Amino acid sequence: MDNKKSQQDLEISARRDFFKKTAALGVTALAGTSLAADDKAIMHHVPWGQTWGDPITKNLYGVPSKYEHNVTRRYTKLLASGNYRASIAVTPIHESEGIITPNGLFFSRSHGGVAHVNPDEFRLMIHGLVDKEIVLTLDQLKRYPKVTRTHFIECPANGGQEWRGPQFNSLQFAKGFMASAEWTGVYIKTILEDLGIKPEAQWMLAEGSDNSEMGRTIPMDKVLDDAMIVWGQNGEALRPEQGYPVRLLLPGWEGNLCVKWLKRLEFAAEPWYCKEETSKYTALKPTGKAIQHFYANEVNSTVVSPSPEKPWKDLADGDIIEIEGLAWSGMGTITGVDFSTDGGKSYVEASLKGLVLPKSWTRWSYMHTYKKGETLLLTSRAMDDAGYIQPTIDQETKVMGVESVYHRNAVETWEVTAEGKVNHVQIRS
Amino acid sequence: MDNKKSQQDLEISARRDFFKKTAALGVTALAGTSLAADDKAIMHHVPWGQTWGDPITKNLYGVPSKYEHNVTRRYTKLLASGNYRASIAVTPIHESEGIITPNGLFFSRSHGGVAHVNPDEFRLMIHGLVDKEIVLTLDQLKRYPKVTRTHFIECPANGGQEWRGPQFNSLQFAKGFMASAEWTGVYIKTILEDLGIKPEAQWMLAEGSDNSEMGRTIPMDKVLDDAMIVWGQNGEALRPEQGYPVRLLLPGWEGNLCVKWLKRLEFAAEPWYCKEETSKYTALKPTGKAIQHFYANEVNSTVVSPSPEKPWKDLADGDIIEIEGLAWSGMGTITGVDFSTDGGKSYVEASLKGLVLPKSWTRWSYMHTYKKGETLLLTSRAMDDAGYIQPTIDQETKVMGVESVYHRNAVETWEVTAEGKVNHVQIRS
Repeated sequence: MDNKKSQQDLEISARRDFFKKTAALGVTALAGTSLAADDKAIMHHVPWGQTWGDPITKNLYGVPSKYEHNVTRRYTKLLASGNYRASIAVTPIHESEGIITPNGLFFSRSHGGVAHVNPDEFRLMIHGLVDKEIVLTLDQLKRYPKVTRTHFIECPANGGQEWRGPQFNSLQFAKGFMASAEWTGVYIKTILEDLGIKPEAQWMLAEGSDNSEMGRTIPMDKVLDDAMIVWGQNGEALRPEQGYPVRLLLPGWEGNLCVKWLKRLEFAAEPWYCKEETSKYTALKPTGKAIQHFYANEVNSTVVSPSPEKPWKDLADGDIIEIEGLAWSGMGTITGVDFSTDGGKSYVEASLKGLVLPKSWTRWSYMHTYKKGETLLLTSRAMDDAGYIQPTIDQETKVMGVESVYHRNAVETWEVTAEGKVNHVQIRS
Repeated sequence: MDNKKSQQDLEISARRDFFKKTAALGVTALAGTSLAADDKAIMHHVPWGQTWGDPITKNLYGVPSKYEHNVTRRYTKLLASGNYRASIAVTPIHESEGIITPNGLFFSRSHGGVAHVNPDEFRLMIHGLVDKEIVLTLDQLKRYPKVTRTHFIECPANGGQEWRGPQFNSLQFAKGFMASAEWTGVYIKTILEDLGIKPEAQWMLAEGSDNSEMGRTIPMDKVLDDAMIVWGQNGEALRPEQGYPVRLLLPGWEGNLCVKWLKRLEFAAEPWYCKEETSKYTALKPTGKAIQHFYANEVNSTVVSPSPEKPWKDLADGDIIEIEGLAWSGMGTITGVDFSTDGGKSYVEASLKGLVLPKSWTRWSYMHTYKKGETLLLTSRAMDDAGYIQPTIDQETKVMGVESVYHRNAVETWEVTAEGKVNHVQIRS
């Protein structure tokens, strides 16, 4: 299923030196052709092999291993409003695998805390410039034909603390305002085919039922393209912090537009200019004016492994190590990722891995041969099929200055020290 | 991303009658062009809009809505050994969406209970007919280049209670011995390229570290094709009941072969004939002989919606309703699904939905126009690119009799009564 056959795959076959030096392996006996008695003995004395395990009835809804207790969303007062209700808890993307984020780790942003909606009392009103206005129960909404699509959701403030330079020596806090899931719901265009839309309708208001009544206005071309109302996330009902029972999903567009705890869609000829699209979620430029109606999260990427949270350990000179990252674009499909070990002075082509889907996380990697004591500046630069490429920091700040919070997508750099530690740095170019 | 443009999609656009009769909608006012005052008022008095929600710090690892407490795996003494440790808890596939099962709902089968492995004490021994024998720590194992693939895992006893006719009037118990996930790990062929495999090696033993020491023998052609050691499931570490920290994954093959809590791979010239591949997991034929070395789960399908657990409610004459199902094959990719409303006498082509991947769940659906008071016999029949099609019950039992527990893949039928209730029935043909 790889979209490209990786050149590096071929190199691996020929080289077979993921562990070049026996000494680096600790308990193993790589140089020999048979295992020491000690190595065999270790297999027979594990405590969990000596007793009954837990009954399968113990957690009929399962939970992670107790040894993974450190893998959670995280919160700091330094993010968003500083209020622990109207704030954000970010995804541990340094622990992520593939292009699915488990629902328990999906980043959570709210403006008034996490609402608990009773699905029996849920109603969705659809009104304004439609031929038939309607109030739907949840069962009625779910009767529309379903679609399932894999998309990331990203807060436009992802990396927004970094305009003046790195603030967090942490991948989770620097880039974890995003996550990815398989979403199930109905295209709004399907509902509008049923209800009928009046030709004057140019904008759709989406409003949440929580105490913040989050309201955002969406242009009709997006509504009629791929906007969805979703109730399923990764094969189950949305979690409360994702808007249970239903939220709006605008593939590739700012997370705050994907209104949670949805209660109302209203169609009109003019936009609403809600609080959250005038005083917030606009991008301040050096001229003092701000960009409004700024929707799509532009092409972006980051190294994911290694990270400040998961540095390199026990590598020996000559070991082959996979450097892995994520790329994503709200405007289309990732077409390639360039990778640099010198902070962006020179690039080579990375390999895209696994499924490459539109408006979806895309994994990439590069097989690196480690030189003992080397220092590296890891940088990546993604491209999409809308024709965009990530800018350098200088290119981006020349246009946008450093006063905006949102839509920062300049290349990131991660320094690897001689000891294998990883630091978030900023390389101007 | 749909692989086929569905003919039904076009019909929907033209017809716009998901809710044909106003009366069926209860609170709504479909026939009118504007909403009643009552309908507008209902939007303003929801209790969760009147107060602060939960702080986002409350569940840094999230949990489902309290209103979804009924969506869990389920256990009954009627399944497997009847012992609540060495048994099975099955997936609520009647609530499933898309092709990802959340880890908390992934079916769980164990032979000695759920082991809790300490990842720091975990070791994987790889030995026998390899050039370099090795014992790997978890960090070392994870240093190999990673791949991510979406595959179902199915117990070969899925539906195995049904050889003599329906035993469970429940989709979860009748067909929930399976689930699907995005898996991350390393191909065993990659490890063998590193260690070197001797030409005499024809079989691989995989052994678990739990108290049952589950052991199964795998032929080398599968090992060198797509066999993986996986540590990631849906973007996070495996759950304990899925073999944390690592299990074997043999895409499309019986779940019991995908040994959990893995501790040892041994390569040899002959198969092992372990207990679980001689006294169990063989298929008894009418001749009194049993089929051994029976690995792949053959092409299969079922209706998922409606189900005994989620019957049709409040449908009006003429309403369009989506009938949805799953199809899967351990031998390749689903190429089509035939659908019947008369128990298999006549079939029409269903539409495949969303991603269609090899050895993966594939969603299909059919848009049905409901006739008030009708009774239906819903049957589906899937095909794969290995050239197989699901047999009828008579075709299957003619060859296999009714004494086997495993590999039942004859077509299933679900009766819909005039009241919309759904019953599991068996139609001989």
